[in-house]
Amino acid sequence: MKLLLINPNISDSVSQLIRAEAERSAAPDTTIEVLTARFGVAYIETRFEALIGAYAAAELAAEHHERFDAVIVAAFGDPGIGGLREALPCPVVGLTEAALASVCLLGQRFSIVAISQRIRAWYRETVEHNGLSGRLASIRGLDEALPDIGNVQRNQGERLVELAERCVAEDGADVIVLAGAPLAGLARSLRGRLPVPVVDGVSSAVRHAESLVALQPGAASRGSFAPPPVKPNQGLSPALARLLDRSRDS
Amino acid sequence: MKLLLINPNISDSVSQLIRAEAERSAAPDTTIEVLTARFGVAYIETRFEALIGAYAAAELAAEHHERFDAVIVAAFGDPGIGGLREALPCPVVGLTEAALASVCLLGQRFSIVAISQRIRAWYRETVEHNGLSGRLASIRGLDEALPDIGNVQRNQGERLVELAERCVAEDGADVIVLAGAPLAGLARSLRGRLPVPVVDGVSSAVRHAESLVALQPGAASRGSFAPPPVKPNQGLSPALARLLDRSRDS
Amino acid sequence: MKLLLINPNISDSVSQLIRAEAERSAAPDTTIEVLTARFGVAYIETRFEALIGAYAAAELAAEHHERFDAVIVAAFGDPGIGGLREALPCPVVGLTEAALASVCLLGQRFSIVAISQRIRAWYRETVEHNGLSGRLASIRGLDEALPDIGNVQRNQGERLVELAERCVAEDGADVIVLAGAPLAGLARSLRGRLPVPVVDGVSSAVRHAESLVALQPGAASRGSFAPPPVKPNQGLSPALARLLDRSRDS
Amino acid sequence: MKLLLINPNISDSVSQLIRAEAERSAAPDTTIEVLTARFGVAYIETRFEALIGAYAAAELAAEHHERFDAVIVAAFGDPGIGGLREALPCPVVGLTEAALASVCLLGQRFSIVAISQRIRAWYRETVEHNGLSGRLASIRGLDEALPDIGNVQRNQGERLVELAERCVAEDGADVIVLAGAPLAGLARSLRGRLPVPVVDGVSSAVRHAESLVALQPGAASRGSFAPPPVKPNQGLSPALARLLDRSRDS
Amino acid sequence: MKLLLINPNISDSVSQLIRAEAERSAAPDTTIEVLTARFGVAYIETRFEALIGAYAAAELAAEHHERFDAVIVAAFGDPGIGGLREALPCPVVGLTEAALASVCLLGQRFSIVAISQRIRAWYRETVEHNGLSGRLASIRGLDEALPDIGNVQRNQGERLVELAERCVAEDGADVIVLAGAPLAGLARSLRGRLPVPVVDGVSSAVRHAESLVALQPGAASRGSFAPPPVKPNQGLSPALARLLDRSRDS
Amino acid sequence: MKLLLINPNISDSVSQLIRAEAERSAAPDTTIEVLTARFGVAYIETRFEALIGAYAAAELAAEHHERFDAVIVAAFGDPGIGGLREALPCPVVGLTEAALASVCLLGQRFSIVAISQRIRAWYRETVEHNGLSGRLASIRGLDEALPDIGNVQRNQGERLVELAERCVAEDGADVIVLAGAPLAGLARSLRGRLPVPVVDGVSSAVRHAESLVALQPGAASRGSFAPPPVKPNQGLSPALARLLDRSRDS
Repeated sequence: MKLLLINPNISDSVSQLIRAEAERSAAPDTTIEVLTARFGVAYIETRFEALIGAYAAAELAAEHHERFDAVIVAAFGDPGIGGLREALPCPVVGLTEAALASVCLLGQRFSIVAISQRIRAWYRETVEHNGLSGRLASIRGLDEALPDIGNVQRNQGERLVELAERCVAEDGADVIVLAGAPLAGLARSLRGRLPVPVVDGVSSAVRHAESLVALQPGAASRGSFAPPPVKPNQGLSPALARLLDRSRDS
Repeated sequence: MKLLLINPNISDSVSQLIRAEAERSAAPDTTIEVLTARFGVAYIETRFEALIGAYAAAELAAEHHERFDAVIVAAFGDPGIGGLREALPCPVVGLTEAALASVCLLGQRFSIVAISQRIRAWYRETVEHNGLSGRLASIRGLDEALPDIGNVQRNQGERLVELAERCVAEDGADVIVLAGAPLAGLARSLRGRLPVPVVDGVSSAVRHAESLVALQPGAASRGSFAPPPVKPNQGLSPALARLLDRSRDS
Repeated sequence: MKLLLINPNISDSVSQLIRAEAERSAAPDTTIEVLTARFGVAYIETRFEALIGAYAAAELAAEHHERFDAVIVAAFGDPGIGGLREALPCPVVGLTEAALASVCLLGQRFSIVAISQRIRAWYRETVEHNGLSGRLASIRGLDEALPDIGNVQRNQGERLVELAERCVAEDGADVIVLAGAPLAGLARSLRGRLPVPVVDGVSSAVRHAESLVALQPGAASRGSFAPPPVKPNQGLSPALARLLDRSRDS
Repeated sequence: MKLLLINPNISDSVSQLIRAEAERSAAPDTTIEVLTARFGVAYIETRFEALIGAYAAAELAAEHHERFDAVIVAAFGDPGIGGLREALPCPVVGLTEAALASVCLLGQRFSIVAISQRIRAWYRETVEHNGLSGRLASIRGLDEALPDIGNVQRNQGERLVELAERCVAEDGADVIVLAGAPLAGLARSLRGRLPVPVVDGVSSAVRHAESLVALQPGAASRGSFAPPPVKPNQGLSPALARLLDRSRDS
Repeated sequence: MKLLLINPNISDSVSQLIRAEAERSAAPDTTIEVLTARFGVAYIETRFEALIGAYAAAELAAEHHERFDAVIVAAFGDPGIGGLREALPCPVVGLTEAALASVCLLGQRFSIVAISQRIRAWYRETVEHNGLSGRLASIRGLDEALPDIGNVQRNQGERLVELAERCVAEDGADVIVLAGAPLAGLARSLRGRLPVPVVDGVSSAVRHAESLVALQPGAASRGSFAPPPVKPNQGLSPALARLLDRSRDS
Repeated sequence: MKLLLINPNISDSVSQLIRAEAERSAAPDTTIEVLTARFGVAYIETRFEALIGAYAAAELAAEHHERFDAVIVAAFGDPGIGGLREALPCPVVGLTEAALASVCLLGQRFSIVAISQRIRAWYRETVEHNGLSGRLASIRGLDEALPDIGNVQRNQGERLVELAERCVAEDGADVIVLAGAPLAGLARSLRGRLPVPVVDGVSSAVRHAESLVALQPGAASRGSFAPPPVKPNQGLSPALARLLDRSRDS
């Protein structure tokens, strides 16, 4: 099985974290490829940055998806996930929705621990869009600038543990999500240090993408995730245009 | 006052409908300019098309906003609206949220009449994101192909009236929204033919944008609509990059 | 255009604040008239006082509405607004719903800053009735007695700013509403002192009432905001009885 | 125990139905008194009529409550109930909330059968205000004019049974509420004809008011149902003014 | 009238508290019988203990219900209540749902004061299942071990009062529920010491069960509370098997 | 890896369907064991039957869990799942929650197709408890008696397809869940016959249980899924008692 993970940001250091955790999580016969956005920002904290990341991810997905069994958008907040699920013929999984799928099998209420204060609004809206606000205990974030996004785990590890513990003790969380691709793999290294199950987006996404490929639930030819109806388009990259036009040929 | 309306789609015929209704709705001293997306699709019905339209709108907004007092994203579904509200220093208004603001002052429950069946899921998610699902009575859509998007009002007018009447009689709507830029101006011409108030996105957006400019509520320097924190970016159009970098200079 | 603002309370000093802010906010060709309730209390903080204010407003509206293009119920909490919207042939706008319409175009989550602790429950129920609890970050109120309701802005201004800042910093508000007619105009004078947009009920109501008159969405002859069905009544003021009987003549 | 039931409408024929069912439902040592509104309409179907009924009920309650152990506002939709609960020193119960309290002990989801189409919006908002929309299966109403409100049970009985059966078969109701004072007592006479439990507002209100008096839960001196803070008032009936001023004396 | 109260736990000391409060609350002609679970735990704090208590209560109810007019499951959290309501031919009432029915007639928002921290999640889920989360202000619990469950009122009384006061002052509660059978009767002894109405599960359940018997709403032969469809079963106690098979005979 | 699937019902024919689909879905190195409840009913449609099934499953789980890496409660509706998750030291997965985890990665709104009309209320409450009612498009069920529960797929296959198609066309489902252990494996055989992805509870549960074991998120020692606090118990099976007492030893 071949999985494509798209980092919708421009940080190669984060792509390396994603790749490392994806490879640790994948089944033995799964091949992992990680692509980094050609344009965009260092990491996404806001709706505007997500808008850019979604488009960057869409271009990469359109160009490369045909070689893969499933595509993972490897940023918490799942930029562009709904659109890509419509457009691509294979399963598409986002880090947030994958983490939430794990969470829902481990407890009733969850908290998200994040890399910044600012990012919390975007995460809250992502949880709302997933229809799971009723199970969200809290979102807590670091409150310092992050000059070195590829090393936030090392530099802020203890502070992240402390935030997680407050989510359990004060907010009533049954499960903790360590959110954001820059934290990929941290859950694994914290194993046993937190009093509740800890979920990681990248490993959840890899496992669940493998499951969707194995379960073969079938593709949508009707409903709101069928491919967009074919209609005139212009000015798009060849791959995006080909994706939009594909129904014509099928 | 100068308003920029961005049609995030490539249809000049729809831009003309938008411009005509915007000019009919604006105050005498308001100047209207309508820009059409350089890339994208003929009209947006799906999440994937919205993702593309959002990016096309963001590029135009970044390039042109400085000449205007407010920016309107002139597609129902409000592609990119949250992101643009963060990034631009002026008020930003979407057709859906503007229509909903009008609706909420005219009745308790509303229905949306739309140009296609497929578009309904995207509209429902937009209403959910606006937090107003509890007041949504129904979304009804035309069920025929639309070969000529600029003439859908003329070709489907009677059918749209019939859908609106069923929203009132069967779904309990107090107010009807005629949704989608291709229907811009239809509410005006149907005045008196429907048994409840009828709301149009373009005219609502123009009026409410004028109000926001007049009320001068102030800009966000904190909270989730403050400008995105400055961080490395690459590969973006000069205008987008300038927008992302602007906090540096302020 | 002629707008009637009804203060459903007996405080002339508050009516003056309402008039001053309404005149500052209105378009040049808009005429403002403010009427003060003939009976009731000094200001509304509770459901029982709102019940009284609603009836006092209804009597004034029934008596005077025919001379106006729109009617504004000028108390936060919108006493009687749904009933008046059914009964009057012109647009009717409440301060809360008008403020919320502005809020929804400026950010995702909002807080309300109010003149007392007690008033918070009534405001929360008003937001719930507007279907916008999901976007409410918090309601914070002054906690001192208000012997001089017409001077609360002057006496408590700094404390109100402080409450607003805590709404942003601690509660996650993107927008602040300064609530209650006694605070009319305060948003204007605080402009630039708060880190997020600030919304005022009176100015929002004036602008949105003007917009509704301009948009001419049409009146309800069906749905739940059509005039009440004609049926026997007794013991009402002549104006109220005339309003209830009007369908007979139409 | 002495219970006051206030019919907030002017129909003596409905007051007789209320009295008859209240007496059939009450414990042997309970005394029932029914008062009819001095002003208002024949029966309430709309928000505007409810506004009037609320004030009429408030005046009667203020005048008479001191002789009673509890007060029942005897119209479905509970006009003025929240305000009266603040203002009166004794338990106050509305027909809707009493019926819903019974419903919640008999099943999970319920439907309301009502006397008109128009009345449904007001009932839906009442259920929403009670926070129980999630358990509401449907509201169905008669669709004919009701020239003789005191005889609607006799004239429309079979049609009401048919509506209730459809609520069970098509809408998934576990319990039926026969709503509106004009239907007082109908549930009793339909016993055994419907396939699910049937609840009546008047008998539920009488029983639950008796229970509240017996349970003696205590009155609110704090929280949002404490008496309204004393402040200047004018122009009110002596009884209403006395009620508003009472904290002064206590 | 004969009421059966089933304590789904094995603590005779708690059964005595239940009996004492039930007898204080019941009408003069009501006979109270309390049965203690034959198997299970000392008191229920978790979903797993509730699962056991539900089965223990079901066995007792199946065996004894025929001698009674109504059955009360006398543990807060209402273990097994929905199932028993389907299976038994008489009214079935749980402590939580009975307390909530009282609460909803006394105020808008309520808090629950409980005997432990751990129990809060189970109570929150019970409130959610009752559809009343929107009115829940908070759940606060004792934070000490409870070696002597039958004496928790005496040992922790002052601490429970303090928690209740914080619910009013900090969480906005209009009504307090003292939750859990081990607190049966405490509301009565605290009367007048708290600034808002206080509700007790046992007394509410007794009163409301009496009301349901008196109102005779009828039994469900359709809908989701009709008796379970007859089908093969095995290995059950004779009484449970008889209950499941009863439709055969009717 | 060793997975235990517990059929909480007494039907061996259904256990065979469960085993067959579990073995088809499991990874090559996963061992499947299916146990059938010693007591209970043929299949669960109601809350009361679920209460019995939960206890039967708890007894089997307590007795056998130590030999397994994860436990699956193999009935849609997930009887006892929350309690078992607290009590067992390994991951516990239910068919409904597993199916919903798959659904949430495949689309936004889903419908459930079920084996009877009666079962729908229980499923709806299960979805509500999972916090996903906002994404539930509909629940449709067969409306005939099921004399041979092990052959419902064969006898009712075409009718089930028809129901699924109506969920897509009329209810707006993006994904279909074929619900209930008696339908285990049907999704696999319908592949390609439905216009949207189809999800099966058993295969989803097997895959997700494998993922949870692989992800090693850690166990709860705090929060609401920590083991129940140790306290006196009596009358339980030795295995259940041992499970409740285990914290003592740890």
